[in-house]
Amino acid sequence: MNEHHSTLLAPMIDPQAKIGNNVRIGYAVRIYANVEIGDDCQIGDMSVIGWPSSKQPFKDRPVHIGAGSIIRSHAVIYEGSAFGPNLETGHHVIIREGTKAGTNLRIGNHSDIEGDCEIGDYVRCHGYVHIGRGSRIGHFVWLFSLVTLTNDPLPPSFLHVPVTVGDGAVLAVGVTPMPGTVIGKGSFIAAGEHPSGNIPPGRVFARGAVSVPITRLANLQYGIQHPWMNHFIEAYPPEAHNRIRALAAEISGKQ
Amino acid sequence: MNEHHSTLLAPMIDPQAKIGNNVRIGYAVRIYANVEIGDDCQIGDMSVIGWPSSKQPFKDRPVHIGAGSIIRSHAVIYEGSAFGPNLETGHHVIIREGTKAGTNLRIGNHSDIEGDCEIGDYVRCHGYVHIGRGSRIGHFVWLFSLVTLTNDPLPPSFLHVPVTVGDGAVLAVGVTPMPGTVIGKGSFIAAGEHPSGNIPPGRVFARGAVSVPITRLANLQYGIQHPWMNHFIEAYPPEAHNRIRALAAEISGKQ
Amino acid sequence: MNEHHSTLLAPMIDPQAKIGNNVRIGYAVRIYANVEIGDDCQIGDMSVIGWPSSKQPFKDRPVHIGAGSIIRSHAVIYEGSAFGPNLETGHHVIIREGTKAGTNLRIGNHSDIEGDCEIGDYVRCHGYVHIGRGSRIGHFVWLFSLVTLTNDPLPPSFLHVPVTVGDGAVLAVGVTPMPGTVIGKGSFIAAGEHPSGNIPPGRVFARGAVSVPITRLANLQYGIQHPWMNHFIEAYPPEAHNRIRALAAEISGKQ
Repeated sequence: MNEHHSTLLAPMIDPQAKIGNNVRIGYAVRIYANVEIGDDCQIGDMSVIGWPSSKQPFKDRPVHIGAGSIIRSHAVIYEGSAFGPNLETGHHVIIREGTKAGTNLRIGNHSDIEGDCEIGDYVRCHGYVHIGRGSRIGHFVWLFSLVTLTNDPLPPSFLHVPVTVGDGAVLAVGVTPMPGTVIGKGSFIAAGEHPSGNIPPGRVFARGAVSVPITRLANLQYGIQHPWMNHFIEAYPPEAHNRIRALAAEISGKQ
Repeated sequence: MNEHHSTLLAPMIDPQAKIGNNVRIGYAVRIYANVEIGDDCQIGDMSVIGWPSSKQPFKDRPVHIGAGSIIRSHAVIYEGSAFGPNLETGHHVIIREGTKAGTNLRIGNHSDIEGDCEIGDYVRCHGYVHIGRGSRIGHFVWLFSLVTLTNDPLPPSFLHVPVTVGDGAVLAVGVTPMPGTVIGKGSFIAAGEHPSGNIPPGRVFARGAVSVPITRLANLQYGIQHPWMNHFIEAYPPEAHNRIRALAAEISGKQ
Repeated sequence: MNEHHSTLLAPMIDPQAKIGNNVRIGYAVRIYANVEIGDDCQIGDMSVIGWPSSKQPFKDRPVHIGAGSIIRSHAVIYEGSAFGPNLETGHHVIIREGTKAGTNLRIGNHSDIEGDCEIGDYVRCHGYVHIGRGSRIGHFVWLFSLVTLTNDPLPPSFLHVPVTVGDGAVLAVGVTPMPGTVIGKGSFIAAGEHPSGNIPPGRVFARGAVSVPITRLANLQYGIQHPWMNHFIEAYPPEAHNRIRALAAEISGKQ
């Protein structure tokens, strides 16, 4: 066990890391040797900066975090990338090797940039955004929650056909461009769409399908009936049972 | 470097935090000054409780965690919120400032409550649930995996039109209510729907579209052919190659 | 406060854990007593291995990590599971109790295996994959980003009807098999589909719906007009305003 304890007590900030002035580093942060952090940055608790890459040509190359950046807790940023000033990440963000990003990139909670991407200035990503390897993203682009940029046209394969997003384009919640999609400048892709091919600039893309009421709750059956309160009351503590029964009665009466 | 080391060795539990009796705190947890934790709680390893907010009026206000709560590892909970008793979170959960939640809220792994929300009693959220800022959620509501409550009707904008979910409503996997949607008491929204407007109480909403077989694997082409085993065998270690070839032969024979 | 500090300073690697030769353990890792780690493994920073389960029959049973495995940072793996050699996980992965997996399982960033699952050899999962409790997954299966295997046919209920995925099947981005779906060997389910029932082997499933241009940006209204640059410029720092105005003019001219 001694071997493990010695590993664990190694310095969490490698003395070779280049850290600027007025940098605030949180609790239990690990910073590897290859890291360059500009002035006036904040690195959140439990983050890992400079995680080693196994991919050439990024392996053993530095990661540069521009001045004025804020990286929130539980982030993981690999070596071999460069971020302009004022990068701002949410919590639990992962950014892999080989990413080049401009100024003022913002990335929301739980997002994942898979590496080898080029990202312009002032790009905004909400949460759970997945930017596939090799994506090309212009300036002032918006990627809302759960947007996924794919890159394999016939998965799984060794083909690699990433997505290009033009300046100022907006991809609403859950948009998943198919591999090779080129989205024109300023186009707006509606929630949940799977665009493909060349999307011209300045357009709105959507299928327009809408939900409609298809049946009454009482007709939904699978050995049991909705409203769910009738068969699922035991999932709640006893003190909540009377309230659940009253709610079931109210909903059943409304159908 | 001394400056950073002194930061890192600062106490991880701020002595100003108010921590009740019989509270079990895991390894490498950070608790900020503004935190109030009721009796009999568990705080999981590597969590951060009381993360500072920059938003008024929540900045510098306490976060209260009700008695009997269980917060699993790698959670981040901001200052400026109040949770009733028996809050239970999965791992890697994020809850931002200004949330008011009743008793017995459960939130699954990797979920994200974006703040300024009101949440009733006995609400259940599965994993990757995203509750947009300002959402209003009743009692006994169910939000299944990947449910996303939006709030910007023409993104990006400064407009803010959050979603309201009535008591006992059920949003199945991946449901994404559009901004301003009001979901009636006890309604059931089927998997993947994007409801909008006013959904009356006690209804089932779905489009009902189903997948159908569209072609044979051999007709899928992109310079390569499926089954994928034929062109992707090198992604596996050599000892697996014979098994992959046999599987490819079997699947090809079945088409 | 003394009580909490003593908890916090407890050993992070329980001396009862069985750890093989040449195992590299990162910074701030917690390893519980019930853990068995084979030779030549790597355990990433801030991970938790052996998280206690409250579910029978998995409670207090060991978790076995096969030789040659790589677990990346911020992972959580419960007690009561067994993984063959060469398990490889991304960052922020969660695996609950009762999972039995073969050799060479790979699981991407932010994925979640909910437990009591059987997973064959050489299975590959990308990010945000959610494998519902009780799923049965064959050998050489591919689950791409955001694939969600469900198990409750009329949620919420106590019913439990998990999904079965045959050898070599491919579920593209966002595929969400409904409860009880049986996917035949080698079938390919296209992005975003919600298959159900019995999918025969060696087929391609898709609805084939595609996005089409539905209107011009200028027709999208909600009190404001697109392109968004016209009404949202204040969200950017002043030095970016001229570039945004130029982009707005260019996009407006293109419609």
